[in-house]
Amino acid sequence: MVDALSRIINSIKPVDLSLKEKVEHRLNNLTKPKGSLGRLEEFALRYCCITNNYIPSKLKKTVLVFAGDHGITEEGVSAFPKDVTFQMVKNFLNGGAGINVLARHVGAEVKVIDIGVDYDFKNMQGLIHKKVNYGTKNMAKGPAMTRDEAIEAILNGAEVTEEIIKAGTNILATGEMGIGNTTPSSAITAAICQKDPDEVTGKGTGIDEEAYKHKINLIREALKINQPDPKDPIDCLSKVGGFEIAGICGMILKACQMKIPVVVDGFISGAGATVAKALCPVVSDYLFAGHSSVEKGHKIQMDYLGLTPILDLNMRLGEGTGAVLAIGLIEAGLKIYTEMATFDGADVSPGNEADI
Amino acid sequence: MVDALSRIINSIKPVDLSLKEKVEHRLNNLTKPKGSLGRLEEFALRYCCITNNYIPSKLKKTVLVFAGDHGITEEGVSAFPKDVTFQMVKNFLNGGAGINVLARHVGAEVKVIDIGVDYDFKNMQGLIHKKVNYGTKNMAKGPAMTRDEAIEAILNGAEVTEEIIKAGTNILATGEMGIGNTTPSSAITAAICQKDPDEVTGKGTGIDEEAYKHKINLIREALKINQPDPKDPIDCLSKVGGFEIAGICGMILKACQMKIPVVVDGFISGAGATVAKALCPVVSDYLFAGHSSVEKGHKIQMDYLGLTPILDLNMRLGEGTGAVLAIGLIEAGLKIYTEMATFDGADVSPGNEADI
Repeated sequence: MVDALSRIINSIKPVDLSLKEKVEHRLNNLTKPKGSLGRLEEFALRYCCITNNYIPSKLKKTVLVFAGDHGITEEGVSAFPKDVTFQMVKNFLNGGAGINVLARHVGAEVKVIDIGVDYDFKNMQGLIHKKVNYGTKNMAKGPAMTRDEAIEAILNGAEVTEEIIKAGTNILATGEMGIGNTTPSSAITAAICQKDPDEVTGKGTGIDEEAYKHKINLIREALKINQPDPKDPIDCLSKVGGFEIAGICGMILKACQMKIPVVVDGFISGAGATVAKALCPVVSDYLFAGHSSVEKGHKIQMDYLGLTPILDLNMRLGEGTGAVLAIGLIEAGLKIYTEMATFDGADVSPGNEADI
Repeated sequence: MVDALSRIINSIKPVDLSLKEKVEHRLNNLTKPKGSLGRLEEFALRYCCITNNYIPSKLKKTVLVFAGDHGITEEGVSAFPKDVTFQMVKNFLNGGAGINVLARHVGAEVKVIDIGVDYDFKNMQGLIHKKVNYGTKNMAKGPAMTRDEAIEAILNGAEVTEEIIKAGTNILATGEMGIGNTTPSSAITAAICQKDPDEVTGKGTGIDEEAYKHKINLIREALKINQPDPKDPIDCLSKVGGFEIAGICGMILKACQMKIPVVVDGFISGAGATVAKALCPVVSDYLFAGHSSVEKGHKIQMDYLGLTPILDLNMRLGEGTGAVLAIGLIEAGLKIYTEMATFDGADVSPGNEADI
């Protein structure tokens, strides 16, 4: 199992930049002042380089929503009961959740993976069954998972991703569901980025000052008891992480190996990306950050990953909602790149590279 | 003509807030933590209130691209030759420009209006013919337009808008084309917001330090020679404005009168919105700001209008490109509002209003 993970990591290559100049040349000949479409042009350039395609095909978009439960919820870190995790999984399968609506809006498919929900879905149709265990253990009292469980969850995430890419998906969005999962996300960020829990733990709008202090203390306790090794990302993930975070990490590693860009959603997805980067530094070059999360640890993750979020709409729902909206903008950039007229073609004078 | 304009302005009502609580109640019962979709929820709420619809119909989106020329270009304020204005109008009609690509991406229709281009389009098909004159005069030497011309251009913008709304459009985006038009936009912003030209004039990326100083000096000169009265928005518009800016002002006034929201594009559109607000302060409540322009005067306009841009992607193309992308996000908010499941309907526990 460790070998399988090493094989993936060792076969991830830096992004091939051989098309960069050619793509830039094409962008600079479109009927607009040079660079005037800002980040839309950056999205097109990065997409072409990541996939190593001069003219990419139409986007086939999939958001993978990994669901898992968290033992830490017994300490009262969320105002939602733990059952909401499995209830929301059913809501996803019925198409009624935020991610379903926004995925439809941008033309993305939603795939829901049970990677660690504390509920027996039996053979529920439409769900991808990759359960490692029925939720993590309470990390304030000991490790959330065993090391083997963490690796299994990463490999499960990678396996689902491989199938989806083989079926034609050429851009991915991360998503997740797990009541209580901002707590392990803060703990992982604290452990890997070596920050105090204070600096990476958010209030949300629903948590009052007392509950917030309690949450920080629990994270401090979990780090003290488990002593995750910042140099060993799997150690951090297994001791203070979650199954869905591990699944997202595996998804990112596999996508990078297969040269498919991944749009990272908010804070929980950011924790998965942080583990992936700690395992393999070049992964950042394959990632887009979908949106700025309201959670304050998100900024620390973005600095660690070297990414600038595409959207900032005060969102904090997760599920992949920010990531799919951002896919719509990346697609806009690609359409600019492939569909706009050139100065020559449209008989427009190119000017002196100044702004209009 | 003055009477026709007064009639529009006097019949603009403040946004009716009678549906506000009912819409908020619906938003709070969707299967997500309260407020967790941030600005998407704000977009839905504002759209419902502006149009006074509890359940709005599907969006029918139109971007109006007003094109005009500027006498000030003879002073060398743009690195693009003036002919690019009419060449780009043809490019718009052929579907090859940035705005065409992005409008198609979000499902918006593009309407192109000649309101003051220095070119004889004859009866060119597809173009809306509302020419007031063949470009403005050089404002560094005297008024850009007569007062009558400015009012005529506002009314022409209003007239086009009325027809388009009557044909079913229920959300509008502003757009423009006019080589040299950041210069009058800075001048109008300086005049109405009472700022020094320094504070509202941008460099763009293509203008070097010398050209930038020249541009600021020209604006200073235009303000000195013409002495626009900050208390008289039409005086400012006519002396240091442009036909497309006037058209956008008229478009906004008419849309507000008819209770249809307008998504304002970047800096030039912002100048049109600034004039509209100066004429009728409640118009801001009907507006969305599409994106943050790179032009530094845009921030001054946003403060004046009390708006927070939806997107920030380093764009500075104009044409309506930022506004149509933002329409895609407003639509996402409306779909969240109309398509998401409720806690009751999906059998999900509502929790204690905290975050997940």
